[in-house]
Parts: sequence; C-alpha cells; structure tokens
Amino acid sequence: MKTFPRVGVIGSGQLAQMTLAPAAALGIELVTLANSSEDSAAQSSPHVVGDFKDIETVRKFAASCDVVTFEHELIPISIIRTLESEGVKFLPSSNAFQYSQDKALMRAKLSHLPNPKWQVVTEAPEWNYPAIAKSISGGYDGRGVWKVNSKAELIELLKEVPKILLEELIEFDFEIAVMVARSPHGQAATWAPTRTVQRDGICIETVTPVPEFSASQSEAAQNLALQIAEEIKLVGVMAVEIFVKGDELLINELALRPHNSGHWTIEGSVTSQFEQHLRAILDLPLGETSMVANWAVMGNILGGSKSDMYRPYLHLMARTPALKFHHYRKEVRPGRKIGHVTITGDNLVELRSEIDHALAYMSGEIDE
Amino acid sequence: MKTFPRVGVIGSGQLAQMTLAPAAALGIELVTLANSSEDSAAQSSPHVVGDFKDIETVRKFAASCDVVTFEHELIPISIIRTLESEGVKFLPSSNAFQYSQDKALMRAKLSHLPNPKWQVVTEAPEWNYPAIAKSISGGYDGRGVWKVNSKAELIELLKEVPKILLEELIEFDFEIAVMVARSPHGQAATWAPTRTVQRDGICIETVTPVPEFSASQSEAAQNLALQIAEEIKLVGVMAVEIFVKGDELLINELALRPHNSGHWTIEGSVTSQFEQHLRAILDLPLGETSMVANWAVMGNILGGSKSDMYRPYLHLMARTPALKFHHYRKEVRPGRKIGHVTITGDNLVELRSEIDHALAYMSGEIDE
Repeated sequence: MKTFPRVGVIGSGQLAQMTLAPAAALGIELVTLANSSEDSAAQSSPHVVGDFKDIETVRKFAASCDVVTFEHELIPISIIRTLESEGVKFLPSSNAFQYSQDKALMRAKLSHLPNPKWQVVTEAPEWNYPAIAKSISGGYDGRGVWKVNSKAELIELLKEVPKILLEELIEFDFEIAVMVARSPHGQAATWAPTRTVQRDGICIETVTPVPEFSASQSEAAQNLALQIAEEIKLVGVMAVEIFVKGDELLINELALRPHNSGHWTIEGSVTSQFEQHLRAILDLPLGETSMVANWAVMGNILGGSKSDMYRPYLHLMARTPALKFHHYRKEVRPGRKIGHVTITGDNLVELRSEIDHALAYMSGEIDE
Repeated sequence: MKTFPRVGVIGSGQLAQMTLAPAAALGIELVTLANSSEDSAAQSSPHVVGDFKDIETVRKFAASCDVVTFEHELIPISIIRTLESEGVKFLPSSNAFQYSQDKALMRAKLSHLPNPKWQVVTEAPEWNYPAIAKSISGGYDGRGVWKVNSKAELIELLKEVPKILLEELIEFDFEIAVMVARSPHGQAATWAPTRTVQRDGICIETVTPVPEFSASQSEAAQNLALQIAEEIKLVGVMAVEIFVKGDELLINELALRPHNSGHWTIEGSVTSQFEQHLRAILDLPLGETSMVANWAVMGNILGGSKSDMYRPYLHLMARTPALKFHHYRKEVRPGRKIGHVTITGDNLVELRSEIDHALAYMSGEIDE
C-alpha cells in the first residue's frame, strides 16, 4: 500500500536541492523537472530532463506525481491552467501562482494594502521621475528592473519593453522579507522577519530577526504577510519582500516558493522553509517556526575570481567551525549565486563579521 | 577541474540516507553500495547494487571513489586489507575498523582502560555466573549477545557458537554513549554524552546531555572517548558505548561509524555526526559540536501493528509542531527500526513525554 506521496518540482536548482533533505526525512518521494542532469538537484536525485515550456513534457511529468510545485516562476501560466483543468494538482494553484508571475496583477490584487504608487503603462506618462520600471514578469536579482530618471528614458525603454509596470521610487530605510506558509486547510505560520542586504540589486546577506525592529514592527510585518497569504489563497511558502520607511511597510515583491531570504531557516529555525513548503502543499500540519538561536546571519556566495571553491572551504572551516556551508554545485561564473553560508549565535557583530569575511574570501576579494 | 571529492559508502540504509543532506550541502558526491535499489538511501540517490562480500564488486565500486567508508561492520576485513594494499583509501582504515568488527580485539587493545572482566573462550571456564556471552563479531541490537546463567548454559551455547567473548555481567546504573570524531591530522571533537535507554537490548530513546551527569563526569566520559579515538587512530566518527556504575565508566562497545545514539546531533548540535563523518574522512577541519538547545531527546520508531505510517504522522505533527521526523522508508516489520523522532528544548520532562507519546502512538500501543 503506497501512502507516502510523490511530489514533482518544476525546476531542479538549489531550491529543489535543499528540499531533498526534508523530503527524505519525511519519507516523501521527490522528482524534479530539470533543464539538464547537471542542474544542482539533478546531480544527485531522481529527475526528468525536459522543457517546462512544453505542455506535453509537463503533462507526462505531472502524471507520475501526486502534487506538482515550483522552484521558479518561468512556467507559462497557460500550461498550469490547462493541466489543472485535466486534474493535475499544482500547488500553489494557478490562481495564487499568477501573483508570483505577474507583478501588475499582484499590485492590483493587493491595491488596498500599502504599495508604492504604481501604474501599468505602454506610453510614458507624466510622473514623478526618477521612478522604477519593471517588466511585468520574469525579472529577478535585478534583471527586468530599471531606474528611469526621466520621461525621455522611459520612452526609450518602452521601445524595447512595450509594457511596463511603473512604480514610485521609494527612498526606503531598508528592505526586509517575511517568509510565510499556508496550507489548503488555511493553517498559516510565519518566521521572524529578515533584514535583507542588497548589492547591485542582488541580495548578498540576510540578518534574522530584523535588528532595527521593535516587537510591534515585527508583528506588523508578519501580519501583513499572513494577510497576503490568506487573500491570494497561498498554498506552500511565500516570501513577501517589503520596503521599510519609518513606520511604513510597503509591499515590494512576492515569490510563491522557498526563497533566498528564507535560507537561514535551515539552521536557524525548528522547521526550515523547505520542510514547511512540503508540509503545506501536502496539507500536513505545519511545523514550529521559532528560532533556535538569537540571531541567524546568511551570506550568498557569488562567483568571483576563484574557480576552485573546494580549497577555500578548508580555510573557512578551520577559521570558523560553526559556519554552515551550502554548495549549489554550479559552474562558477562571476556574480552567479553558487552557494551560501549561515551562522547562528548570540553576538550579532561577531556573526556578521564571520559572514562578511567568508563572502569576501570565497569571492577572492581578500586572501586571508 | 574536479576538486570536490567523491565518497563511497559500503551500505545504503538509513545512516547513508542521513549522510546525503550534508554531502549535498558540502558539494560532495556520495555513492552507496546497496543490497538493493529498495534500500533507504538507494531509493533517492546514486548507488550501485552489489554484494559487499564479493571483492571484485567492492574493487569496482571503490575505483570510482576518492574515499570509501562504512555504514555497517559486515564487510570482511580481508577484502578491506587486500584493496588497501592495492591503494584503495578506506576510512576508517582496516587497522582502526577491526576494533569495530572484532570485540575481542577491541578488549585486548583497550585492556589498560576500564573494561568489564573479559576472556575469549572455546571451552566453558569456572567463572562468576551469570555472565554475558558475545559472538566475537557481527552482533548488534541484542543479536549475538546472551546472558548465560551457569557453566552448563555456556557449554550448550559453545556447541552452537564455538568461540565466545565472555564478559562480566555489570550491574550498571545506566548506559551512555559518547560520539567522537577524529581526522587524519589528529584533530578530534566530541559531543555531549548521551544517555541511552534500552528495551529488549534495543535502544529506544536517547537523552542529551546525560541528565544524571555532573560536568566532571561528562568530561571524564568525553576524555575516555577521545583517548580511545587516538589510540586506535580513528578517522571518521565513532560511538563509544559505556556502562556507568557509580563513578565508574566501563567500555561496552565501539561502533566506528555514525550511530543511532548520535542521531540527535542532526537537530541538536551545530554539526551533525553525519556531516562530521564526511569532514573527518576528507580531512576537512571539524565542525562545531556545541548543542543548539539545552536538551535533545530522540526516540526510535519500531515497527508495530500499524503498517501505514503516513496517517499517524498527521496526528503527531498536529499535536507536536516541534517534533522532527526521520522516516527510513523501510518495510514495516514488528520490532524493526523504521524511523526516529527528535525534539529539542528547555523542559526535559515535557520533551520526554512528547517522545514517549510519539513512540507509543507510532507503534500502535496507544490510539491518541
């Protein structure tokens, strides 16, 4: 009698890779739809190689799974909707997942909540420039997002990208993210809000909980995430990226999947975002989300001048025995996220200093 | 340029399965030598199916690996020695691993340390009966160990098992285990000693740290484990099982591999025994072994009357959100270890009560 479910993941990168451990622990079979057998998760686990933009490939892949979920936002919503009508169980469902794919739809859906001013444009309007221009879908890590300083610049951009989500440029104090999980039964849970530190539009470091926050600000951010999860009928985990300006919390982006800003939960929380995502999509009761230490600091390792990442490990392991490594087994390319490191403990200044050193050392910026 | 190593594991059960996550995180390729593709680890990871008692099979398996290690003690030492002479790197090496396989050899090697009185016999001697009789190799979980109440009983046993390790029956207060790791460079680390609770010769629960221990007793137990690791030139992790009687610590058994009494380290320590084993055999600097909570309690789930283990999950997850599950994906048979659960926190009475409930519920002893 087969009672343990089989979960399919569209995508086979590091997010799928980090889902393998909780899947194994929970007795859940995981299979990924990979671009190639060299993808992070595919290197060591059951997978199918195929094109997620080809409906026949996805149909066949889904047929062997009890539930299908996502590691990225790139699969066409039309494929999800068609297969849903044939009985495939995608979670989150297309009705929720669309807000991860379509930034304009997300703004419209959540327009009663605090957003930057926004407008979908095909022609450059009179506006308070400089402003932020985003492609409606597909952008991440700084791609598909532009700062436009004038109407003239927007006119130029619209020649290349005919439809743009124009947003008010927020002079925020800092950015945070709140991870939230919700199950089909409506059980929901959040983790402590996370301060995200960006460089060139890419998150390089996270600190949890947000050092600048009072208890009531933390609660307000968590409540905002819970409210969004309920309104879009999220199933699974979601990152809500938020601008903080004084006491204001303004929604920046949603990602309806495990997210870089939640990587700290692997070591820093009783239940990781990856385990929680599985519990949520399988409608298992959600796990405890409290932290196991006062602070958790995570740093993204970006490809730099070192092509050999193994020897630098030795140095960092010897220097910082408490440092936890996550290697994505990707080819090193400058600026590419190829891994992350996490450390937990009591002294935030020391923890950040260890992470900063690790990032600089791995990227080749410093030699010792 | 391939710089990340490939590790082979002889055996593909739950210990190999739980090594997959740290291997992936560290970027290390792991391949197992499985009895069948249905083995715990083999179900979801790269493996070779073959007989570990066949030297040609092991030779071929080892040829693709940088280092070969063990999940169990069953591979003939002659195979290890022959392949070592051909240049295969087994870690721990045969010179250390023999003490895991041969209990008489272990007693002789460590005879200057506190042991129960012991003697290898082929004929029943005058002795202080009742005594413990053990087969020299191959026993575990209560198998290969007998209580003999009289010389007459030993004579009968020797007809079936012609060579016996006879040991003094220790009226111990309780049993503990200390996990210890050592690298080829001689770097060594221990974790907090663990109280093990047995039923019918099988460990059913562990509590870490040992509730009955003072700081100096903990230190004495850790020092004993470190001394043994050094003397046998351990590489990898090892469990030292110890009888505690008053202030005395008496060596019971050694297991030169990750061990059931160290499962709590997955959630309860900064570095798990599985990650540490990989670090040690690859001569990477060892990780921090401090605990992340005051207490860690682990319970072994033994097969009972419930053949469906998925539905009972729901109940326990709903009751105890902080409970962490480890399912071994084995066919349920009465008395067989099919998984374990761990919980960490501050209140030992509550933690033990949750684990006790979980074990009773999963085994079918209680229904709610």
